[in-house]
Amino acid sequence: MAIIVQKFGGTSVGDIVRIQNVAKKVKAELDKKNQVIVVVSAMSGVTNQLVSYCHEVSSLMSDDALAEYDSVISSGEQITCGLLALELQSIGYKARSFLGWQIPMKTDDVHSKARIDSIDGDFLLNSLKTHDVIVIAGFQGVHGDSGRIATLGRGGSDTSAVAIAAAVKADLCDIYTDVDGVYTTDPRITNKARKLNKIAYEEMLEMAYSGSKVLQTRSVAMAMAHNVRVRVLSSFQEVTEESGTILVNNEEEIMERRVITGISYSKNDVRITLSRMPDHPGLSAAIFGVLADKEVNVDMIVQSASVDGKFIDITFTTATEELSRAKSALDSISDQIKYEKISIDENVAKISVIGVGMVSHSGVAHTMFKTLAEKGINILVISTSEIKISVLIAKEYGELAVRVLHTAYELDK
Amino acid sequence: MAIIVQKFGGTSVGDIVRIQNVAKKVKAELDKKNQVIVVVSAMSGVTNQLVSYCHEVSSLMSDDALAEYDSVISSGEQITCGLLALELQSIGYKARSFLGWQIPMKTDDVHSKARIDSIDGDFLLNSLKTHDVIVIAGFQGVHGDSGRIATLGRGGSDTSAVAIAAAVKADLCDIYTDVDGVYTTDPRITNKARKLNKIAYEEMLEMAYSGSKVLQTRSVAMAMAHNVRVRVLSSFQEVTEESGTILVNNEEEIMERRVITGISYSKNDVRITLSRMPDHPGLSAAIFGVLADKEVNVDMIVQSASVDGKFIDITFTTATEELSRAKSALDSISDQIKYEKISIDENVAKISVIGVGMVSHSGVAHTMFKTLAEKGINILVISTSEIKISVLIAKEYGELAVRVLHTAYELDK
Repeated sequence: MAIIVQKFGGTSVGDIVRIQNVAKKVKAELDKKNQVIVVVSAMSGVTNQLVSYCHEVSSLMSDDALAEYDSVISSGEQITCGLLALELQSIGYKARSFLGWQIPMKTDDVHSKARIDSIDGDFLLNSLKTHDVIVIAGFQGVHGDSGRIATLGRGGSDTSAVAIAAAVKADLCDIYTDVDGVYTTDPRITNKARKLNKIAYEEMLEMAYSGSKVLQTRSVAMAMAHNVRVRVLSSFQEVTEESGTILVNNEEEIMERRVITGISYSKNDVRITLSRMPDHPGLSAAIFGVLADKEVNVDMIVQSASVDGKFIDITFTTATEELSRAKSALDSISDQIKYEKISIDENVAKISVIGVGMVSHSGVAHTMFKTLAEKGINILVISTSEIKISVLIAKEYGELAVRVLHTAYELDK
Repeated sequence: MAIIVQKFGGTSVGDIVRIQNVAKKVKAELDKKNQVIVVVSAMSGVTNQLVSYCHEVSSLMSDDALAEYDSVISSGEQITCGLLALELQSIGYKARSFLGWQIPMKTDDVHSKARIDSIDGDFLLNSLKTHDVIVIAGFQGVHGDSGRIATLGRGGSDTSAVAIAAAVKADLCDIYTDVDGVYTTDPRITNKARKLNKIAYEEMLEMAYSGSKVLQTRSVAMAMAHNVRVRVLSSFQEVTEESGTILVNNEEEIMERRVITGISYSKNDVRITLSRMPDHPGLSAAIFGVLADKEVNVDMIVQSASVDGKFIDITFTTATEELSRAKSALDSISDQIKYEKISIDENVAKISVIGVGMVSHSGVAHTMFKTLAEKGINILVISTSEIKISVLIAKEYGELAVRVLHTAYELDK
């Protein structure tokens, strides 16, 4: 008898018929005599509606406002977890729902993007003794001191599910979504994309970070930290042994070694270049310090000095939605950093090739640069990690780059 | 500095513009240096939608199901109280919302129609010391032992508001709704209906019970029990000294004595007659016992015996929505009570004349019977209390009866 956590996203619980379909997926696990904890998102569209109500009455700039915002938007998951519990009761199970504060799932007080501090796993395991199945509202917890509802930020239900799986030492955490697994690249870009049966946590982390929307970065990091076996699969297909993609520990489980696991692609980046700044110690610290203070996430960074060493240019990328925050942060220190010009280019795409095998194989970067050069694609910025190489290119070449790299790294079917 | 509880119903918070309008009503009280606690319902339509979702997945027959139902439908008030707190913050106040479990407002565990056990009034008064205004989700509490959300039944937000007003010893509990007060009768039936400036608790209770929908019976009973000064007024009009109708203690405040205060009218009754039952001791007890067991609320009752005393007929009325429950209850004891025939008449209206002055004035009933007789209106059933006379008549005469009685009791403008 295994303990299984099943998480269903917004499209999977988008209406009553789909909630009834979810109940069938739960039943399938119960029929196998597994113990099941279900985590649900809000019905698709509901959270957006609630967020938009909040924006109509508030600029949401204060902590007090964000606490109210959390209380409002957490109601979406409250609705679906109650409805799923009702449906499970209707098909004959002793089911009950739990909201974040009822467990409790304790968080810090950073409302609208809270972090989980603790989950009472024993409480959940005891509840499983007196119920056939329990259903938990994802995305929400409660701040221990204030007793106020706190939400985990967009996509936080994945994080809820993985954290709950860690707290009860679940054998598997199944994340049901509207795609049937993790692909070598986005199948909408090339029909040669293949579903991966397994992927290492680190690879999934880089994929999520580099633009793959299948799982939230945070949930993958948490799965890796707590060694939670996570499987991504479709809620609209029958589940078989072959279904989905499972996240595993690299050393232990991925036997057949491949160099590159996948290629991710993001069109959501903007390149900002600060030109001809008088160089002095602490210049970079000033720039990236103020950006960090304003919570601008910087991705790629390139610095180049003028021939005489007196001036430098700094280029970095960030997400498009953080552009206005980045600009006002830089404005606030323009006296100090004295750039001659600031250039902003939203017409860029980021392509990342990812694979833990990269560590032990040379020539990966060379293949990338050569392949792109052959198609006349100019590389604007490069950044690398142990298991990833990302390049920034002109947006118009994005899909082409993905397709040629998919072939070059032998990922085609 | 007075403590004011303001309650806003579903139509008053029906959209964002209306919530902003509610904030202005709150501001008006704060400008007068009053301490304000606001209680809100769900946006109109939201609770109905959530109830209908629940019915799609469950017959809601078990306590477990009703607990889930409560958790789902309580989210409507969670949304509005957060949005109103946000709007109040946006116009410059330190505002915060409280859900039932955060206060806590403790209830029993009769889910979907829970009763309030206790409210931590000191907690609310302390919160008022650190906030300009607090906003509370109506309709919901939490069961002390299980920690589960419980709702108070339809219209429960009125009851929440009055109970909170009692707990903090508020000087006034303003119930904002879509009508501007309590009228001598329904203004849609006669344009001679007048708004009452004051009404005694007992009169309001009989009015609510007899068909007036302005306030819930429970909230009036609670106001009477705790001597809470309740005012009913419109959220769509400017508030002046003349606004609304205030509920007061009869002896103390209603100086100008009138015999009849108002006439209420209900088309929601059904008359059931059980004919020619062999009389025996315990017959009535058997009938009304089984009806009580099945939670059928019986209103008027008439019993008549045959000339030889061997057979009796019993007629009673109940609400239309309880008819099928009543029939199955009676079926279950048909062997025992052996009625020859059961007649059901839904084509009836109940007219009630209400007034605390009735106690000290004779001839009130006579005026009623004479007035109806003059118009050829036949009385089917009569019931009386100390401050009320109700008659059941054919539905088609309902509006006519209200109009002629309104004139006969000198209630016309």
